[in-house]
Amino acid sequence: MNAIDQLISYNKTTGLLQSVAGRNAWDQETMMPSKSGNSRAMEMGALEEVIHDRKKNPIVKKLLEEAEPKTPFQKRAYTLIKRAFDRAEAIPSKLASDLAATTSLAQMAWQKARQNNDFSEFSPHLKKVIDLKREEASLLSPTGNLYDGLINDYEFGMTKKETSSIFEEMKPRLLDLRQRISEAKLSKPVLEGDFNTEKQLKLAHEIAETFFYDFDRGRIDIVAHPFCSGGGDDVRITTRVDNKDPFNCLFSTIHEVGHACYEQNVSSDFLHSPLGSGVSLGIHESQSRIFENQIGRSRQFTRWLFKKMKSYFGEFGIRDEEEFYRLVNKVETGFIRTEADEIHYNLHIMLRFELEVEVIGKNLEVPDLPEAWNAKFKEYFDRDVEKASDGILQDVHWSIGAFGYFPTYTLGNLNAGCLFQKMQKDIPGLADGFEKGDVSLATTWLTENIHQHGSLYEPADLIKKATGKAFTPEPFLNYLDEKFSDIYDV
Amino acid sequence: MNAIDQLISYNKTTGLLQSVAGRNAWDQETMMPSKSGNSRAMEMGALEEVIHDRKKNPIVKKLLEEAEPKTPFQKRAYTLIKRAFDRAEAIPSKLASDLAATTSLAQMAWQKARQNNDFSEFSPHLKKVIDLKREEASLLSPTGNLYDGLINDYEFGMTKKETSSIFEEMKPRLLDLRQRISEAKLSKPVLEGDFNTEKQLKLAHEIAETFFYDFDRGRIDIVAHPFCSGGGDDVRITTRVDNKDPFNCLFSTIHEVGHACYEQNVSSDFLHSPLGSGVSLGIHESQSRIFENQIGRSRQFTRWLFKKMKSYFGEFGIRDEEEFYRLVNKVETGFIRTEADEIHYNLHIMLRFELEVEVIGKNLEVPDLPEAWNAKFKEYFDRDVEKASDGILQDVHWSIGAFGYFPTYTLGNLNAGCLFQKMQKDIPGLADGFEKGDVSLATTWLTENIHQHGSLYEPADLIKKATGKAFTPEPFLNYLDEKFSDIYDV
Repeated sequence: MNAIDQLISYNKTTGLLQSVAGRNAWDQETMMPSKSGNSRAMEMGALEEVIHDRKKNPIVKKLLEEAEPKTPFQKRAYTLIKRAFDRAEAIPSKLASDLAATTSLAQMAWQKARQNNDFSEFSPHLKKVIDLKREEASLLSPTGNLYDGLINDYEFGMTKKETSSIFEEMKPRLLDLRQRISEAKLSKPVLEGDFNTEKQLKLAHEIAETFFYDFDRGRIDIVAHPFCSGGGDDVRITTRVDNKDPFNCLFSTIHEVGHACYEQNVSSDFLHSPLGSGVSLGIHESQSRIFENQIGRSRQFTRWLFKKMKSYFGEFGIRDEEEFYRLVNKVETGFIRTEADEIHYNLHIMLRFELEVEVIGKNLEVPDLPEAWNAKFKEYFDRDVEKASDGILQDVHWSIGAFGYFPTYTLGNLNAGCLFQKMQKDIPGLADGFEKGDVSLATTWLTENIHQHGSLYEPADLIKKATGKAFTPEPFLNYLDEKFSDIYDV
Repeated sequence: MNAIDQLISYNKTTGLLQSVAGRNAWDQETMMPSKSGNSRAMEMGALEEVIHDRKKNPIVKKLLEEAEPKTPFQKRAYTLIKRAFDRAEAIPSKLASDLAATTSLAQMAWQKARQNNDFSEFSPHLKKVIDLKREEASLLSPTGNLYDGLINDYEFGMTKKETSSIFEEMKPRLLDLRQRISEAKLSKPVLEGDFNTEKQLKLAHEIAETFFYDFDRGRIDIVAHPFCSGGGDDVRITTRVDNKDPFNCLFSTIHEVGHACYEQNVSSDFLHSPLGSGVSLGIHESQSRIFENQIGRSRQFTRWLFKKMKSYFGEFGIRDEEEFYRLVNKVETGFIRTEADEIHYNLHIMLRFELEVEVIGKNLEVPDLPEAWNAKFKEYFDRDVEKASDGILQDVHWSIGAFGYFPTYTLGNLNAGCLFQKMQKDIPGLADGFEKGDVSLATTWLTENIHQHGSLYEPADLIKKATGKAFTPEPFLNYLDEKFSDIYDV
């Protein structure tokens, strides 16, 4: 076997081990007995150690030096393997294990602090996490700017500067739209009834199949915080059930199905190779968001969903299709990111991004974070945060060191905007079938233009290839304006 | 860190990876989507490769040379790590991968052949498996005898000679007992009704708790062929459900709970060490069998179970406690090992052991196996085998290369006999509580004398330590005689 084939083969084994680790993490959230946590943490540590050692193994270095990639597949595989090698080699083992231990403790401290609504319990842990993340960022940054090292790790090629300018473009339009809607007078439809768990799950199952999720290569289970896990032939989704609010289950299912279909539809030629999964968080989130919002919350699809829900649950206090459409698209100024509508969601992300930049840049000290959070929340949301669990303590991300991660949520929305605009242009009458629960024109377009390529192209190139032009926030902002001006008549 | 601590620490990581592999295997049987099999096989192969490499890693060799074990724990850990190293080093990678590939194909061929009732489809595969197992046995045998190399791998210290003499001692008594029973005239109670799946599972759950299975460190799921999986803080059991025959679910649950409690009750001092799990298959099976038979099928416990079943299922055609006791202990000459009663089960094993010895010793050719099987079956069971799926093709073991495994089932029964005899002597009125569903005297004795020790002692030493004398088949044979002479009045 020549060097490039050896390199890809060695990497394949590493990738298979990562799949095993992913499934073990899935098991932890869905199946693990209550008192197995300590042993599980040790298992995950052992597997991570093996995977990390393989990534920066001298054999990889040697093969990278000797390999002569020729085909586009080989060239791209080489690039991605080298990137993972460089990253692993850049981080000393001491720093990696310090980060693992510190974030493990910080996450536990965060959970307690959140329960107690007391940021001061979490603050010293967060300080340690940030110090280590700054150290890591300095080793990873392609530009010297620390934040670039962090965001680039989640969204290759993205920088603090570009992210800032994106949010600067979004900010006035988002604030203007939310202001107009907040002044609108529109009766708010209210959901009535109790929604049986079994029926919700059955409908979730039917919806997943409607979006062509393949249950022969996946499954659905219940968790507290839904996620999608796995790749290739085994991509699992999770959902949650709230008997008072079926949309919780139904739309989080559509969201995770968006992630899952991206993974399931990657070309089988790329299976078990570095090209075999979604290319970045920002592209991944665009797929979950298009499924959930541009399709799932469209006027047409909600007509089908309204009928379905009535057939599953009987009457539930909603008069007609229009009222149902307004209900699943209601805009409200809430404290919690994960419950936010399409407009406020991005304001939540912007707030976090701005604070991250300041705190990583040492312009803001950790103990001052809650005050800074609350001030920004007042500015963007016009409400006072009254407890830390509604504000600074609501998200797990910082406790696990995921700085630079939040912006990828908004990048996902913006990518979804670009892709959906092009899809509408390519396919006249795109949404007509949605009314009958037929989303195949949309999912086929996404499979052809995004899913099948896996990690063949860089995120920015993929968007350009799919849409014919460079990424811009405008299509998404126009989509929001049109949709919500119409709903709220503003 | 000194060499012995380093050795134990290195081995700990290997053990954690084995736990992960075990859970991935559990997932494969319980949770895996239908089309994930190919990728799963590759994942398991990758993980096995890493584990095998670690076991025979030069670093282990070096540490084994340098280590100076001092405490009993260290000495035993050293012995077990060295044994695993020697075994891994003895088997060339080529042979290991040939065995993996050949048995994988053979298992698939066996499944098809069994469906088609056609041994000739399986025969050439089995021939290849046996050739490789002979090669492996020659590298592993402590005595030069090939069969010793195989059985010793499952039950350390056991030999073909000793196993043969055990069966020679058992054979006349088992055949005599089955003959007497077959001539007895006793009306056979018949179960009536349909036993709801949910209720069976709920009762299985209650029974598992009755035997002190800890659900905070385990769980129960449904599969086709029940097994127990895992160790330490995460020991999972499985069961099957047959709506016409609730004993299928209930007694396989008790059986697997026996295995699981052994694992759950190992001293926490041994957690994540080579001492941290059950010491051998023969000891493990003794625990599952004592739970299932000596306790679960005792006259006293079945009184409690009869009441429980009536409270779960109402009347089901059984008149009284005595009839119920006879029902769960009925003796019948069936073709299938896994459905056999306590007497016939060991005849099934004896038949397989005798054929294994002949075929490994080259005194019998693979194509002649069915005929030899059928002749022996006629001799021991007095019935004609009419289809291969009722005979030579019924078990998966040979297809996966598990020669030398079968005898450990009977060793388990015999060990159970020794232990139960001693337990009865130690605890007057041992079974009194069983009538009220209180098995704590028995499980406490087993925890103290067997479970807690994990792999601290060799199997034979453990039995000697627990019973005060060397292992012998007699207590089990006496137990069978007494129990079934009484039931059948023969």
